[in-house]
Amino acid sequence: MTARYHTLPRLLAAAMAALLSGTACCTESPVPAAPNGITLPENYRDWRVIASSHRVDNNTLRVILGNDTAIEAARSGSTNPWPDGSILGKLVWKDASHAQWEQAVVPGAFVHAEFMLKDSRKYPATGGWGYARWKGMDQEPYGADAAFVQECHGCHMPMKDNDFVFTRPAAIP
Amino acid sequence: MTARYHTLPRLLAAAMAALLSGTACCTESPVPAAPNGITLPENYRDWRVIASSHRVDNNTLRVILGNDTAIEAARSGSTNPWPDGSILGKLVWKDASHAQWEQAVVPGAFVHAEFMLKDSRKYPATGGWGYARWKGMDQEPYGADAAFVQECHGCHMPMKDNDFVFTRPAAIP
Repeated sequence: MTARYHTLPRLLAAAMAALLSGTACCTESPVPAAPNGITLPENYRDWRVIASSHRVDNNTLRVILGNDTAIEAARSGSTNPWPDGSILGKLVWKDASHAQWEQAVVPGAFVHAEFMLKDSRKYPATGGWGYARWKGMDQEPYGADAAFVQECHGCHMPMKDNDFVFTRPAAIP
Repeated sequence: MTARYHTLPRLLAAAMAALLSGTACCTESPVPAAPNGITLPENYRDWRVIASSHRVDNNTLRVILGNDTAIEAARSGSTNPWPDGSILGKLVWKDASHAQWEQAVVPGAFVHAEFMLKDSRKYPATGGWGYARWKGMDQEPYGADAAFVQECHGCHMPMKDNDFVFTRPAAIP
């Protein structure tokens, strides 16, 4: 009996450690974190739509999604600034032509998924936004080191008056 | 006392009738049904993304959404044919230019939301699909009478080998 009393807590501790280390759980994402430590948001494929766009300079189609906090903000018009906890996700594809409807540009190869996470206390140096991007269907993190966010934020600077966000929520009845 | 016994059932009957007629309930959709009787799918704004497109012939941006059945089919590659119960929804906006990024085409005025409902027993004459469209932010039903679906289905005929559907699910990791 003495042995059992000692073994149970040890087993529990081992199970806890395994869970905390993230190696034991089948639901753990296999996608590496971005160089600044941001991890791929869970279930972003299931997020709701905020807008879409087509960049004709680099020939890419985009759909902009939001987590629940972002969707609530978008629908209530509270996006300048976006509230802390908002995450915007952008899915980007190379242009392709529709085989049966040539005048339609449709999604071709997947380019990347990129995210902006609003946390004004965590990311004061970049306007309150944390940036991260995962490339291609293999979801390779973008950036050689944590300084990659300077490139992201630099590109978003012209949108300072719109809380550094290019996307304006589309009208949806 | 006699009066009360007679009044209560009558009140209940009136309440039931009001509920059944749909005029008493605050949650009833105020959007009129399409001329073929199809009603606006509930909560379509919360559906998940299947694809996007940009039609350069009529200058419109589109996002294609699906209900749960359609999303499951899209993600498992079971879309030819789409299973009964699938609903595809398309949100359409006029092109607009991004004020701070001219090379980006972004959603302008909302044009319409259109839907394809798969029910092979209910809609055998139109490839198993029921069609409906609601125009603008006012969500005015499209079509003078039920024959409007001939126009929809006629346009979709070139896609017969793809279950009459133009949209091919976009790659999303």
